[in-house]
Amino acid sequence: MASGKIIALSGGVGGAKLCLGLHQICEPEELYFITNTGDDFLYLGFYISPDVDTLVYTLAGINSTETGWGRADETWKTHNVLGELGADNWFKLGDKDLALHLHRSKALRNGETLTSITQDIANRFHLKANVLPMSDQMIQTIIDTNKGLLSFQEYFVKQASAPKIESISFKSKNPEPSAEVTEILTDPDLKGIVICPSNPYLSIDPILSIKKIRQSITESKRPRIAVSPIIDGQSVKGPTKKIMEELGLKVNVLTIAEHYKNCIDGIVIDHLDQGYAGEIESMGIHVKLSEIMMNNDDDKKRVAEDVINFIDQIS
Amino acid sequence: MASGKIIALSGGVGGAKLCLGLHQICEPEELYFITNTGDDFLYLGFYISPDVDTLVYTLAGINSTETGWGRADETWKTHNVLGELGADNWFKLGDKDLALHLHRSKALRNGETLTSITQDIANRFHLKANVLPMSDQMIQTIIDTNKGLLSFQEYFVKQASAPKIESISFKSKNPEPSAEVTEILTDPDLKGIVICPSNPYLSIDPILSIKKIRQSITESKRPRIAVSPIIDGQSVKGPTKKIMEELGLKVNVLTIAEHYKNCIDGIVIDHLDQGYAGEIESMGIHVKLSEIMMNNDDDKKRVAEDVINFIDQIS
Repeated sequence: MASGKIIALSGGVGGAKLCLGLHQICEPEELYFITNTGDDFLYLGFYISPDVDTLVYTLAGINSTETGWGRADETWKTHNVLGELGADNWFKLGDKDLALHLHRSKALRNGETLTSITQDIANRFHLKANVLPMSDQMIQTIIDTNKGLLSFQEYFVKQASAPKIESISFKSKNPEPSAEVTEILTDPDLKGIVICPSNPYLSIDPILSIKKIRQSITESKRPRIAVSPIIDGQSVKGPTKKIMEELGLKVNVLTIAEHYKNCIDGIVIDHLDQGYAGEIESMGIHVKLSEIMMNNDDDKKRVAEDVINFIDQIS
Repeated sequence: MASGKIIALSGGVGGAKLCLGLHQICEPEELYFITNTGDDFLYLGFYISPDVDTLVYTLAGINSTETGWGRADETWKTHNVLGELGADNWFKLGDKDLALHLHRSKALRNGETLTSITQDIANRFHLKANVLPMSDQMIQTIIDTNKGLLSFQEYFVKQASAPKIESISFKSKNPEPSAEVTEILTDPDLKGIVICPSNPYLSIDPILSIKKIRQSITESKRPRIAVSPIIDGQSVKGPTKKIMEELGLKVNVLTIAEHYKNCIDGIVIDHLDQGYAGEIESMGIHVKLSEIMMNNDDDKKRVAEDVINFIDQIS
């Protein structure tokens, strides 16, 4: 595989699958995963960063494929005793997973940046790829629903994505990307930018809500490729379809292409959606047809190869 | 067993054994365990209160008799991963135990008192006895050693009690007992006060360092009984003997009686130490000879019965 630095914008599970595929076929040192931190929250005194952790665990091969979050071979002793004590335990933290939260929270209290402690943790798990939280500031995804304003975890975990979404916003004071994110976005050796098939509204938009990131991507001369999170009118995973409907959007790949319009040069869609290819191309966006459902490691590798080939093709 | 409220001053393991004995023979609601918190410390962002926890776990019957601290049937997943992450894990926290620290720390951050959250935890473990931290303020035992000033946990756990002690002090700003401790010390239904066979210098002195507690005990008209932590020149458990030697004290029950002189009316010593009985009695302190080594539950019950009988006898 040709060398060159690749940026991938990712949320949790769905995005992490493509990241793992890229990790299998590229030089890990040349991969820069800019990860959503809009879901981050404070819980029992810990700083929890769900998408960053899902990505780290997935790349390290220790993620739970059963639950889609947390670690494999996990135990729940602390969680269960919290329940016995009548304490908060609506957000399930496994015993192994907990150590990461303790370690990171202590580092943050000691003045380390989220980026620095994330990289330290990634190194401990023997990862050479660059896992970059989108910002070292707290930027909180706020969901306005028929049940009131909810943070991401209140919406997604506590209320199981049931409330009807009216709008989504990102709460922060002058959000800035981390120094590391800023640097890679303008790196002369950058080969291309990938938008992973994460939820565009809840996982990718928080990243693009940071003006400097959006501007760098909009102005980038490198090929910028999205992989659709929608196949044949269905979301590959999670509540993407439900949210699109609630926001009054048509659930198809055209809506996705329109959503990313100024940020992408090409989009990878499934063969099942080839009927939309012409209309997307007429927007000036290249289309690559592929099989984009990622059920196993071979699928992930194949989609990653399609993405890298597409970048080479557009360059 | 005759009714009436009993106060017992206790540290960790050794004291908790007598507390458990009292718990077996008295009405739990009438027991008030004033517990050392000089060992309390902040660790990984948690407030840890080792003696309070040892007492709660012991009374609840879920303590580890193997280690002498923590819970039985414990696992160490979080602890082990902390090690893998290169994080602090010199203080071993079990997975079940951790839940208590999370729960208590959150309550303290929310403005609850240590006394209130301790009682809440005790209730969750179905205890009816009153476990009272000596104070709701942080009062830190500071040990001046040949290795410098150490906190209790640095001395006891991190350095395994190896440094030579030069002096012991208790760091706090105008330490006050909790409201609950103040109340029970002057309760008209108080039947007697027990000083458990904990380390006098590291576990009981922190409690007596609070002027109002010492004064209440000194002035109390109720029988005040100590149980010796020394048998035949040896400490029953832990570094009591070593510390006495380092402080230039003779390791015998006479030294213990002298140490508690103004705070006790009687002392329970082992048959092996009957040679000291005359000299202790000449100080105006009653002596009860007994078998005070507590290896099993029957021992604990028997020593507790001796203590209660001694209180009745002196009354």
